[in-house]
Amino acid sequence: MLPTRVCRSVQASAALRSRVARESYLKKLVKPQDLVHQFKDGQYIGWSGLGEPQMPRTTTDWLRIPGTASPADQNTQTDAVECIQVGYPKETPLALAEHVEKNNLQGQLRFSLFVGASTGPEVEERWARNKMIARRSPHQVGKAIAKGINSGEIDFADKHLSMFPQDLTYGYYSLKRQGGEDGKMLDWAIVEATEILPDGSIVPGASVGATPEILQTAEKIIIEVNTSLPSFKGLHDITPSHMPPHRQPYLVQNPSDRIGQVSVPVDPERVVAIIETDKPDNTGQNAPETEDSKLIAQHLIQFFEDEVAVGRMPKNLHPLQSGIGNVANSIIAGLRDSKFERLQVWTEVLQDSFLPLLNSGKLDFATATSIRFSPEMFKEFYRDWDQYQDKLLLRPQQTANSPEIIRRLGVIGMNTPLEVDIYAHANSTNALGSRMLNGIGGSADFLRNAKLSVMHTPSSRPSKTDPTGISCIVPFATHVDQTEHDLDVIVTEQGLADVRGLSPRQRALVIIEKCAHPDYREQLKEYYDRALHECLKKGAGHEPHMLRNAFKMHLNFEKNGTMKIDKWD
Amino acid sequence: MLPTRVCRSVQASAALRSRVARESYLKKLVKPQDLVHQFKDGQYIGWSGLGEPQMPRTTTDWLRIPGTASPADQNTQTDAVECIQVGYPKETPLALAEHVEKNNLQGQLRFSLFVGASTGPEVEERWARNKMIARRSPHQVGKAIAKGINSGEIDFADKHLSMFPQDLTYGYYSLKRQGGEDGKMLDWAIVEATEILPDGSIVPGASVGATPEILQTAEKIIIEVNTSLPSFKGLHDITPSHMPPHRQPYLVQNPSDRIGQVSVPVDPERVVAIIETDKPDNTGQNAPETEDSKLIAQHLIQFFEDEVAVGRMPKNLHPLQSGIGNVANSIIAGLRDSKFERLQVWTEVLQDSFLPLLNSGKLDFATATSIRFSPEMFKEFYRDWDQYQDKLLLRPQQTANSPEIIRRLGVIGMNTPLEVDIYAHANSTNALGSRMLNGIGGSADFLRNAKLSVMHTPSSRPSKTDPTGISCIVPFATHVDQTEHDLDVIVTEQGLADVRGLSPRQRALVIIEKCAHPDYREQLKEYYDRALHECLKKGAGHEPHMLRNAFKMHLNFEKNGTMKIDKWD
Repeated sequence: MLPTRVCRSVQASAALRSRVARESYLKKLVKPQDLVHQFKDGQYIGWSGLGEPQMPRTTTDWLRIPGTASPADQNTQTDAVECIQVGYPKETPLALAEHVEKNNLQGQLRFSLFVGASTGPEVEERWARNKMIARRSPHQVGKAIAKGINSGEIDFADKHLSMFPQDLTYGYYSLKRQGGEDGKMLDWAIVEATEILPDGSIVPGASVGATPEILQTAEKIIIEVNTSLPSFKGLHDITPSHMPPHRQPYLVQNPSDRIGQVSVPVDPERVVAIIETDKPDNTGQNAPETEDSKLIAQHLIQFFEDEVAVGRMPKNLHPLQSGIGNVANSIIAGLRDSKFERLQVWTEVLQDSFLPLLNSGKLDFATATSIRFSPEMFKEFYRDWDQYQDKLLLRPQQTANSPEIIRRLGVIGMNTPLEVDIYAHANSTNALGSRMLNGIGGSADFLRNAKLSVMHTPSSRPSKTDPTGISCIVPFATHVDQTEHDLDVIVTEQGLADVRGLSPRQRALVIIEKCAHPDYREQLKEYYDRALHECLKKGAGHEPHMLRNAFKMHLNFEKNGTMKIDKWD
Repeated sequence: MLPTRVCRSVQASAALRSRVARESYLKKLVKPQDLVHQFKDGQYIGWSGLGEPQMPRTTTDWLRIPGTASPADQNTQTDAVECIQVGYPKETPLALAEHVEKNNLQGQLRFSLFVGASTGPEVEERWARNKMIARRSPHQVGKAIAKGINSGEIDFADKHLSMFPQDLTYGYYSLKRQGGEDGKMLDWAIVEATEILPDGSIVPGASVGATPEILQTAEKIIIEVNTSLPSFKGLHDITPSHMPPHRQPYLVQNPSDRIGQVSVPVDPERVVAIIETDKPDNTGQNAPETEDSKLIAQHLIQFFEDEVAVGRMPKNLHPLQSGIGNVANSIIAGLRDSKFERLQVWTEVLQDSFLPLLNSGKLDFATATSIRFSPEMFKEFYRDWDQYQDKLLLRPQQTANSPEIIRRLGVIGMNTPLEVDIYAHANSTNALGSRMLNGIGGSADFLRNAKLSVMHTPSSRPSKTDPTGISCIVPFATHVDQTEHDLDVIVTEQGLADVRGLSPRQRALVIIEKCAHPDYREQLKEYYDRALHECLKKGAGHEPHMLRNAFKMHLNFEKNGTMKIDKWD
């Protein structure tokens, strides 16, 4: 059964009419307030949009552990990316939040919420505070939502960004919802568009994310047309999601290859409402470079130069994937000042630093699933649209993060972990093994499949009582998201460990020597030496550990606010 | 500089002449003994062949931990796959081993040894015992080699089987060997062939593995032509390995699709010798089914039926990947007796049970990188060659294990771990976190990319003093090879946990309830409850752990021979 049309229609502005070429949609124009009563407790909702920090806001987050320190009084290395999100719906979610607040419905109107990754904090945070989120996948950013997850209120399943959209179409997030109308997985798709084409398809804004699959799997569709943004028509390359055995190769052999359409297909009969909005995306400043981030970038660029010199990489490198944050900014800035030319970018999210790199003439082409510039950079981008439109392409996250393409192109993947252990396992998600920060995002899509998989992190972070109280190199990662089978290079401000082809014993020595902060080098070396001694005696010396001491540094941090211990047992 | 021709030539037998269509090669025919003096300490050698158990021989291996038990006196669940390997060179490696033994060169002639995965134990074990292996990647099977790795003698880097061959061509295993002749990564390739074609290319036997890349990267090539086997011409689909930015899509949309050639290209000028051999592959019996393995298979097949019923899988399922061992045998046997038809197999290694499945008419097509039948099954296979040759295809491991194809086809991946934790991380490699068994092999290639990722394991294994002394469900895996972001289903003889879309807290409850052995259910539940209580207090309850107790069950096992503990601290 098709959903009935909703409410009274609203007069379309000239701005809106200029964006909506599908006449029948204009008859469905409503105010968001008119929709709120159609939403029922327990429903499944998908939103457009994607903003995802591939590096956790780590110092801040570590320090939220009770008994240690408050973030405010620290010279933290936070990456301050909480408020940089694009392409998410604003009007309907806010109207729903107002409805809950006005009628004291907190905890009575709870949804399973699915977004490509994270979404606008002014929207999702308000939902979290109003206890409107029962379930959430695959990634999130924001204090209130993280609090809800870590307090047991919200069931959060974090998933590789490349897999979430396909798993949504497979029905893996709606196992208990079989028999929904039309066999669809979601009750609602609420998506933002910058233009609607005559066939009813939509042109997204600065992100694609999982919008194609959310539209594909929802019974009812609400489209918010954002007239405050320019139309992004032509900036997207949209591929549909087929089910096995009908899936097809992604015929991309170069970052600039187009394999799809300029808009996201929509079934017009499932569109129940369109809404006009002029609310801008809530973006903020990018993280400034620091001395440490510059050092890390220098080590990496030197390494790239060495790889080119011995012939293991071409002179223009391979397509770059770079996370979000100050290290990523420093790397891109460093490339601008390097001798590399004709660079290409195949990444998940483009941040500010890429635009100057394009302007410098060093970067030929960049493609991602989301652009997350600061407001100033977006202004520049819109102003010089003609100059950029042939050098940028936005794809669905299933394509942007596709193992198939990342491996084929030989991408250089660079991401920040929370901690790395001496054998090169990395924790990207859970502080002290248990407290979720943001989720794995696309880090493992890239690090597993890149030709060169790099993790960059400061060697230490401050705690309340100790400027180097947290070592980012540990004996045993308290949560493993990237395995030793995946990482090639670990780099800190101290130096770079090239662990390609090394055994765990060799890896431990080089990671401790090159990457650990001097305050922890001996302590880590002693862990390794003792573990080696004990394990060799047992005939178990491949990857030496003292299981009784594996987390001793973390336990000491919880108790005493520093990972520096007196001695190993 | 091209290597000089070696030694005196040898008379070719009629059998050999019938297999070698490249006349120039016959002039290079030698005895293996003639070659041994050309091998120098420190050289890099690649062998053909592939045999890889995707399940560790776990009980046996656990029990090799000093102070617990000897394997012999246990009713172990071992899978006895040590001696099932195919397609590896025999004559040259054995001649080298004899040379070392005769001249007491143990420890003085050491090599970096690279094989697609594991290789013939009568060969490699002898090398290990003679201390001829300094370095080894990416996978191994055998007591002596494992002993060498765990005693610190052999540097072993285990790697995803899909990545090893490409990383070899990238030079990642020869970082310190730059400037080798012709810029090649290996000094030697020693490969077995069942036929040589006029262009000098070789037709492998029952495995492909990394042979294409080993041939591609070696300065000098020795071909062992095995006349005791039939020619396998037509059974292979060989794709070359290109370097980025020139890599190409694998245009496979069906397991039976051919995208390559029938033979492996060889540069004839680099062939320094051919050798005739009639030594058969050293294969053994497949693991017999047990009551537990049958129960696991029953749970899984019921699950498949349920998935088909609700429309999440087609009636002929998706292409199956199945590991090696008794559970895999039970699953295939169960499928033979099920109502599923027109099945397809996309896997790494084909074992005995697949042939009866083909014979039953239920299986349309099977493709892998290696066939590892028992001697009797090989006889049947050779006898009825005409019947099978259009239903089987062998590919390089880079293709067979390719994330691109596995994801596109929507493969059902099924493998056995050493242990799984309550949040669905799995240990596939290191007992008690430190003692290497065989390596990760292709398990993560499949489990990360499969549409349905299944790990199957007995819920417990016996220790010396306790028939259920080892729980395969633990609070925290002592080594993480498969992450919580990768697994969909955990199944033991107790039951099946479907963890798709679940948060860690939800996962823990269902895994403990459905999968844990009753002897451990309460103990694990108490760990979870206490961890939840403590972590919620700290605002860190996403994935509740008590780090101080995370490995307590393992420490207790080391000390007392059982994972049953008195109480949690």
